[in-house]
Amino acid sequence: MSALWPYATPGIPDRLFQQLPGIPLTNRDVRLLVIGYLRLKADAHLWDIGAGTGTVTIEAALLCPQGKVTAVERDEEVAGLIKTNSDRFGVSNVEVIAGSAPECLNYIKGQPSCILIEGAPLKTTLKAAWEKLTLNGRIVVTANNLEALYTASETFAALHMRNIEVAQPTVNRLETRGNRQVFASVDPIFIISGDKLE
Amino acid sequence: MSALWPYATPGIPDRLFQQLPGIPLTNRDVRLLVIGYLRLKADAHLWDIGAGTGTVTIEAALLCPQGKVTAVERDEEVAGLIKTNSDRFGVSNVEVIAGSAPECLNYIKGQPSCILIEGAPLKTTLKAAWEKLTLNGRIVVTANNLEALYTASETFAALHMRNIEVAQPTVNRLETRGNRQVFASVDPIFIISGDKLE
Amino acid sequence: MSALWPYATPGIPDRLFQQLPGIPLTNRDVRLLVIGYLRLKADAHLWDIGAGTGTVTIEAALLCPQGKVTAVERDEEVAGLIKTNSDRFGVSNVEVIAGSAPECLNYIKGQPSCILIEGAPLKTTLKAAWEKLTLNGRIVVTANNLEALYTASETFAALHMRNIEVAQPTVNRLETRGNRQVFASVDPIFIISGDKLE
Amino acid sequence: MSALWPYATPGIPDRLFQQLPGIPLTNRDVRLLVIGYLRLKADAHLWDIGAGTGTVTIEAALLCPQGKVTAVERDEEVAGLIKTNSDRFGVSNVEVIAGSAPECLNYIKGQPSCILIEGAPLKTTLKAAWEKLTLNGRIVVTANNLEALYTASETFAALHMRNIEVAQPTVNRLETRGNRQVFASVDPIFIISGDKLE
Repeated sequence: MSALWPYATPGIPDRLFQQLPGIPLTNRDVRLLVIGYLRLKADAHLWDIGAGTGTVTIEAALLCPQGKVTAVERDEEVAGLIKTNSDRFGVSNVEVIAGSAPECLNYIKGQPSCILIEGAPLKTTLKAAWEKLTLNGRIVVTANNLEALYTASETFAALHMRNIEVAQPTVNRLETRGNRQVFASVDPIFIISGDKLE
Repeated sequence: MSALWPYATPGIPDRLFQQLPGIPLTNRDVRLLVIGYLRLKADAHLWDIGAGTGTVTIEAALLCPQGKVTAVERDEEVAGLIKTNSDRFGVSNVEVIAGSAPECLNYIKGQPSCILIEGAPLKTTLKAAWEKLTLNGRIVVTANNLEALYTASETFAALHMRNIEVAQPTVNRLETRGNRQVFASVDPIFIISGDKLE
Repeated sequence: MSALWPYATPGIPDRLFQQLPGIPLTNRDVRLLVIGYLRLKADAHLWDIGAGTGTVTIEAALLCPQGKVTAVERDEEVAGLIKTNSDRFGVSNVEVIAGSAPECLNYIKGQPSCILIEGAPLKTTLKAAWEKLTLNGRIVVTANNLEALYTASETFAALHMRNIEVAQPTVNRLETRGNRQVFASVDPIFIISGDKLE
Repeated sequence: MSALWPYATPGIPDRLFQQLPGIPLTNRDVRLLVIGYLRLKADAHLWDIGAGTGTVTIEAALLCPQGKVTAVERDEEVAGLIKTNSDRFGVSNVEVIAGSAPECLNYIKGQPSCILIEGAPLKTTLKAAWEKLTLNGRIVVTANNLEALYTASETFAALHMRNIEVAQPTVNRLETRGNRQVFASVDPIFIISGDKLE
């Protein structure tokens, strides 16, 4: 239970996170769908690869207090940002690894039950992630460009992942611009998800 | 914890719910956003008015085991469907009221901390809901047509609700049609939400 | 036939228009739909009220060389921009009026067969436009906010317009950002259209 | 000029076309964008491969009376439907070929200045189309599934097409369902376009 977010439901407003200019942040509406596709058990161990601002990391850590989230982020400063946000929301079940996927994945202790890839060399990271993932585990990938969508889709098929789903949320929101409320759209993203079954 | 949905995250696939032909079901992608906008505390008391198949009711009951959901549904048979789904998912913190809003709201015990209106005479139900809602409570309305969108927006303003947000998710999904995977879209819906503050 | 746009089809890329910072420009994808909803005859007289950069004005003038477009724009400088664009595309059937609708509509010669309202006090302008419009004429309104959507919808109904349609295009496009091609979305707009019949 | 569509602008309502159950029809809103991306000159020769109901064929023929449209359709009965629609709209500059692409493309007289591929074995048809296309000609492909999107994107790159654009329109419309007007969405489609330059 966080003082900053005393709710049992996900959906933390973007502005509650500490942010750094230019660092990706999975916006709330897209994040709600990503959380849904992750399908985390209460004691899940999630790897969040390319965690950026750490918004999904924080939401997952809050929803699964008996679980654990390992956030992997290449950039030292951004890794620090995730720690700042963890402190801000008072979550103690987050581990931050400053390192480059897929190489650094070998140094993480324990086996993940769920892996989210938000950024990293996709093909090699997906293959490494797949090796590490527990049986009956899930992988979710977010893609904002065609190449990543292709690669994810093809690699999922090559790894014989099951229950593959591709969703593309596009959320329009009334936003205040000047003294008017206009419809603005959130840039669309593809969410590709699947299971590792026997 | 449900045997059918042993997860700490929302996002139950539509096919896991018992369904009746013609009865509205809030599909998973839209439901994830609705859950996010509800912003429920662990001990929340949610009224789900016009609950239909009861998908939001079930998700909320699972996320808030110390809380309570009162599902209001005009039609006796549909009210029975919500009970069936409650049993199916093993939730015991759901109360189903077969009755017409806004009249029947007077007979519900306790005061809600959050109210979702998925269907009912919107203006009168919103006003009655507002009266019942605890201070610092939230109201969320889903609208699939212009008239409901107008009414919700105007009534929210007239009631001096705060932090009003309007979001319109439109989710495209790869779906199997025949032997092909084509992009299909989920019909868009508007989600209007706001707070009751002093 | 324009040297700059030697095509029989609409859809001029945005970058071909002279632009001024802060002045609205109906982007190509939305413009294609607006043109379609205008349903112009070869000898149409179109009033484009709140014409901004003049993109619809130019496209309509090119498609209807025997017709005429009267572009109404409140701001003198913006009115000049429309003239610049008319010269650029070599269209001679465009008249630019620098004035405020609805008042200035009384000073336009001739009766329009089609009216597009892209910006102006909506209710009074719609009523004035309706009076001026020929029988069997059409009115199209673009709205980027809820209030304009309401007002257009209600005023169309009050004027007993026929064949009312409301469309909301949201176009995602692959765009180059840095050295990547990412999906970006065009802000959604509502297009409300209807006929004046006996 | 058609008695049925006496307009200088595209955007014929779907219901004005003769239709056959199960035969694809490019709906009006998507069609307006396809027409825009085709960028036809007044004397264009367009090949419409996999023309289905022939809606784009008819719109193009009406916009380019000095041009010509060759509609290619595998199925004899559907080819007949295109002829019926040509007669219906009184266009005489449409040629219908009942045959399978890419093989049948060798038997079409003349060289196209623009090619639209709405359906056919995509890779081989794209390559054959490219060979036939005049210099400075354009190719447009519509794709409603990931595989077609991939193939189009990769083949466009392999053929060194220029000015490649990918757009994905998703249009929401108010539609009457029972006695209500609800928002419904048109299934999204990808439109990939590019130029053949020296």
